[in-house]
Amino acid sequence: MRIARFSTDDSPRYAFVQTDKKDGKEYLIELDGYPLSGRQVQPTGQRYALDDDGIRLLAPVIPSKIFGLARNYRTRTASAADQGRPSAPEPPEDMVIFMKPSTSVIGPDDPIVRPSFSRDMNFEPEVAVVIGRMARRVSRDEAMDHVLGYTCVNDVTLRDIQGDDPMWTRCKGFDTACPLGPWIETDLDPAHAKISFRLNGQDVPQASGTTANLIHSIPEQIAFISSFATLLPGDVIMTGTPDASGTLKDRDEAVVHVEGIGDLRNVVIGE
Amino acid sequence: MRIARFSTDDSPRYAFVQTDKKDGKEYLIELDGYPLSGRQVQPTGQRYALDDDGIRLLAPVIPSKIFGLARNYRTRTASAADQGRPSAPEPPEDMVIFMKPSTSVIGPDDPIVRPSFSRDMNFEPEVAVVIGRMARRVSRDEAMDHVLGYTCVNDVTLRDIQGDDPMWTRCKGFDTACPLGPWIETDLDPAHAKISFRLNGQDVPQASGTTANLIHSIPEQIAFISSFATLLPGDVIMTGTPDASGTLKDRDEAVVHVEGIGDLRNVVIGE
Repeated sequence: MRIARFSTDDSPRYAFVQTDKKDGKEYLIELDGYPLSGRQVQPTGQRYALDDDGIRLLAPVIPSKIFGLARNYRTRTASAADQGRPSAPEPPEDMVIFMKPSTSVIGPDDPIVRPSFSRDMNFEPEVAVVIGRMARRVSRDEAMDHVLGYTCVNDVTLRDIQGDDPMWTRCKGFDTACPLGPWIETDLDPAHAKISFRLNGQDVPQASGTTANLIHSIPEQIAFISSFATLLPGDVIMTGTPDASGTLKDRDEAVVHVEGIGDLRNVVIGE
Repeated sequence: MRIARFSTDDSPRYAFVQTDKKDGKEYLIELDGYPLSGRQVQPTGQRYALDDDGIRLLAPVIPSKIFGLARNYRTRTASAADQGRPSAPEPPEDMVIFMKPSTSVIGPDDPIVRPSFSRDMNFEPEVAVVIGRMARRVSRDEAMDHVLGYTCVNDVTLRDIQGDDPMWTRCKGFDTACPLGPWIETDLDPAHAKISFRLNGQDVPQASGTTANLIHSIPEQIAFISSFATLLPGDVIMTGTPDASGTLKDRDEAVVHVEGIGDLRNVVIGE
């Protein structure tokens, strides 16, 4: 099931995304409430074609917190350690976890705004976990009961700022640094999700990978984070970028694709 | 003016805190709304004695984000660099900024819960800035127009975890790591605020200081942070701890005092 957040004018609403069997087109089936509220939600009877001009998809959640994992792929650790930190020959034993603020979140098709103080903004395509039920000190075995679903995220990073920003707050936390979407997919095998990235329509093969190469699996991530911080419905974990990242220039079109979820597309503009 | 958030049973409400001239006691003057909503708020006519058994002060805000400054006092940089990071002989040129999640916030008299995985939890008494108006790319001269007021914060830190936690997410972001309160004081000179700390009723003189010794002033902090992340009403900046920190043991009573604001008191318990 796909859960989207959208607006036709001002007020954000939620919908299921479904393909019509007759015309093969995708539709938003509007819901009467918020799927993360804990209450049952029902279709209102209203539906909208996804490609309607008046329809704007929004980030599927505005998380109370966003955690990110650094150097969490065997593939990335070997070939593409973060340039702003001393590179590690071995994967780190503990998870390296950072945060992004909710003000960094943007939705599908929203512009990524390169701040005027940076000249080397990078893409990092990733799978994002969306929490569905409060998680506090849950075990690895219990962890997946607290997941609502998965979406695409671009962990946009100012590589030239990272070296002077020891906590990564500025280089990963600036406004628009967290494109999220296009919707939450509840039916995905998070242990074998394929990630790819397209820059201006061209596949960037060195940025692709699969969550089968995660060092710390998604259940391990949820168990570890919830061992110190309570995860709330709508909170997001960015699970790590699989391999090489690369520069985003003004007017570039960045598309994060996760097989089984879809495309998260954003265009870069200068501040 | 002092703005408090409180509850008598379940529902949080806001109040001004005023001293009655006749009996010399402090009262909560209940308000009909949220002072940060942008709308005018009015007294409801109801008042409660602050020392009433049924009154519980809450953290005065639940911030959408909490930024903290590390090594931001001339006094601390010289005598007490954070043990988890290489110590700097000179103050850092750029601001070192980290984040705490909103789930780490607790209010006055709430317990600080030491996680079972830590044996060296530290106190760090600080002045916290509470944002009143959205701030985006504001100058130092404009910065103070975006401040609602100030409160006390204890930037509780797991010193034994910090060395293996490069982004400080776990050591400063665990549940209960951000005691905040007792209320927001709107009338304070933030350039000359005196901070002190009492442990089990005893003053800890090496933890005290004054914001006159800040390396990066409060207007500079707001200007710098708002140059990359939009600050929203209710957001909090922890301005740094003036000098030495120290260990909090189970059952310790920790009191952060800022002259002109008041006492933020919390007791430590083991998980």
